[in-house]
Amino acid sequence: MNDQEPSGEPRRRHRRDPEGHRAAILEAARHTFAERGYARTTLREIARRAGVTHGLISRHFSSKERLFLAAVPGNRDLEQVAAGDPATLPERIAHGFVQRMETDAVNDPLVALVRSAASDERAAAHLLVAMQERSLTVYRSVLSPNVPGDDLDTRVALLGAQLIGVTFSRYIARTEPLASMSPDELTAHLTRTLRHILFD
Amino acid sequence: MNDQEPSGEPRRRHRRDPEGHRAAILEAARHTFAERGYARTTLREIARRAGVTHGLISRHFSSKERLFLAAVPGNRDLEQVAAGDPATLPERIAHGFVQRMETDAVNDPLVALVRSAASDERAAAHLLVAMQERSLTVYRSVLSPNVPGDDLDTRVALLGAQLIGVTFSRYIARTEPLASMSPDELTAHLTRTLRHILFD
Repeated sequence: MNDQEPSGEPRRRHRRDPEGHRAAILEAARHTFAERGYARTTLREIARRAGVTHGLISRHFSSKERLFLAAVPGNRDLEQVAAGDPATLPERIAHGFVQRMETDAVNDPLVALVRSAASDERAAAHLLVAMQERSLTVYRSVLSPNVPGDDLDTRVALLGAQLIGVTFSRYIARTEPLASMSPDELTAHLTRTLRHILFD
Repeated sequence: MNDQEPSGEPRRRHRRDPEGHRAAILEAARHTFAERGYARTTLREIARRAGVTHGLISRHFSSKERLFLAAVPGNRDLEQVAAGDPATLPERIAHGFVQRMETDAVNDPLVALVRSAASDERAAAHLLVAMQERSLTVYRSVLSPNVPGDDLDTRVALLGAQLIGVTFSRYIARTEPLASMSPDELTAHLTRTLRHILFD
C-alpha cells in the first residue's frame, strides 16, 4: 500500500498493481462509509486509508456514488446471486443477504445507507434508487418469464423493503426475535417471505 | 389551552378538562417527536406546545417513553385494528397503516423512530421492542387458533420489518415505485404481502 504518486507526474496507463489498488480502495471505502455514513465520507479519507492517492480513486471510480455502489456487497454480487433457476432466486437472495450481513454487518454499506437516511435523506434516497434500479434490471432478466411484467417493479420494491426492514430490526435496532435468530433460521424465514413476495 | 398551574399549588384531582388536555398533549407530542426525533424531544417542549404544565404531562403519562407509545397512532389503535375476523387481519393492518401514513406521515412518530435509529439507537430499539411486544400480545390473542404458536413471534417480526421497510422506502427515502403508488394500490399489495407473511 505504498504507491503515492509524486504530484504532477503524468498518468501512467499501467499501474504496478491495479487489482490490488482497486481491492484496497473498496475495502477502505466499505469501512469508511460504514463508520462515518455516506454524507460525511470523503474520497480523501478513503485514499488515506487505502494508502493511495485521491487521483487514483478517481481513475478507478468516477464518483463517490459509483464507489459506494461498487463497495456494497449485495450490489456488487447481484449478477452472481441472480444467475440460476428463477424458481430458487428467493433462496439465493436470502442466503446471499444473510451470509453477507453475518460476515460483517458493522462494515456493511447498506447499514450505513439506512443510517444515513436520518441525517442525509437525499443522498440516501438517490443511492437506494440506483441500487433498486440495478436490482430490478438484473431480477427482471432472470424472472421475466415467471412474473407478470407490470407487477415486477412492485414486487422487487416490496422485496427491497423487506430486506431494509430486516436490516433495521436485526442489525441496527436489534429487536427480538430477529436479533438472536440463527443465520440458518433467518435464511429459511426470509426465503419463504421473499418467495411469496415475488411469486404469489 | 390556557391552564397553567400556579407553581406550588397542590395537585387537584379533577382537572377542568382532562380529556382536552390529554388530546392536546398527544397532539403536541406527535408533532414534536416527528420534528425533533425521540432523543431530542423534551417533555418541557411538549408542555409548552400543548399549553400545559410539565407536571400535568407527568400525571397523564408516567414517562417520555409511555407518552411516545401513546402518541404513535398504530400503537394506540392496535386493539381496534386487531379486533375482528383473524382471516382478514392482514387487510386491516395494511389499511390502517396506509390510511394513517397518508393522513400525516410527516407527523408520524414511527417515521421519527426509524429516523432516530441513526443517532439514537438504544432509545429507538427500546421503543421498537416495546411496540413489537404489544403487537405480538394483541395479534396473538386474535390469531392463536390460526397460526402455530412458536412461529407467531417470527411472523409478527417479519410483518413489522415489512412495515418498517415500506415506511423507509415510501415516506423517508421516497424510492419508486412505492413512493408514487396510490394509497389503494399500496394497501392491496401490502395486504397480499402481509397475508403471506402471517399465514403461508
